[in-house]
Amino acid sequence: MTAAEIVSAYWKACRARDWAAFGELLADDVVYELPQTRERIRGREPYVRFNAEYPGDWDLEPVRITGDARHAASWIRFTVDGGEQTGLGFFDLDDAGRIAHISDFWPVPYEPPPGREHLVERY
Amino acid sequence: MTAAEIVSAYWKACRARDWAAFGELLADDVVYELPQTRERIRGREPYVRFNAEYPGDWDLEPVRITGDARHAASWIRFTVDGGEQTGLGFFDLDDAGRIAHISDFWPVPYEPPPGREHLVERY
Repeated sequence: MTAAEIVSAYWKACRARDWAAFGELLADDVVYELPQTRERIRGREPYVRFNAEYPGDWDLEPVRITGDARHAASWIRFTVDGGEQTGLGFFDLDDAGRIAHISDFWPVPYEPPPGREHLVERY
Repeated sequence: MTAAEIVSAYWKACRARDWAAFGELLADDVVYELPQTRERIRGREPYVRFNAEYPGDWDLEPVRITGDARHAASWIRFTVDGGEQTGLGFFDLDDAGRIAHISDFWPVPYEPPPGREHLVERY
């Protein structure tokens, strides 16, 4: 399976709360990082727990998943308690085809800086 | 060229301010979107101008570029006037192998929510 197929299976298992299938996609020593908060989780078991314990009534839907043999990126639409968030992840596989590293980003809305109104439209 | 190779050339041309080479990688009707501000630019010429006019003393370095034949994603480290930002982009090519659509995200640091201290370390 390519990295994009693995990441597709990862989001499918996550969405289904199928933590056994989710965990099988991860390396034992998977490292999960949130560069914005500088939080890091090491190891399959705590990382599965992090997801299983995630609070709120949430769901998700992939918008894009793209990658090559060993690397992939995903863009998901994440809804929780009626709000919508954007999740962007970069994934690296190990030699066994398991997810060894995840960098996860959660960009939020902001006001555009002035000076480019002549080039942009708002949607 | 794969989409990842096109995106690699895109960042190389951007960094070099080689706006002719940069423009050649874009479809005539390229659409650039910033989902966080809901800004959109349509067309090669305004989109090249947007980049060429971007204010400040900036530089960039790709951290990851991954993709398949028609789609790619990149993660860049962007420095401007001494500050560092993270840029994440999703790219779609058209049939001619030119960049037809870009979704660009700029996540910023935030404080982690409470309740997961038992699983995470800070770095």
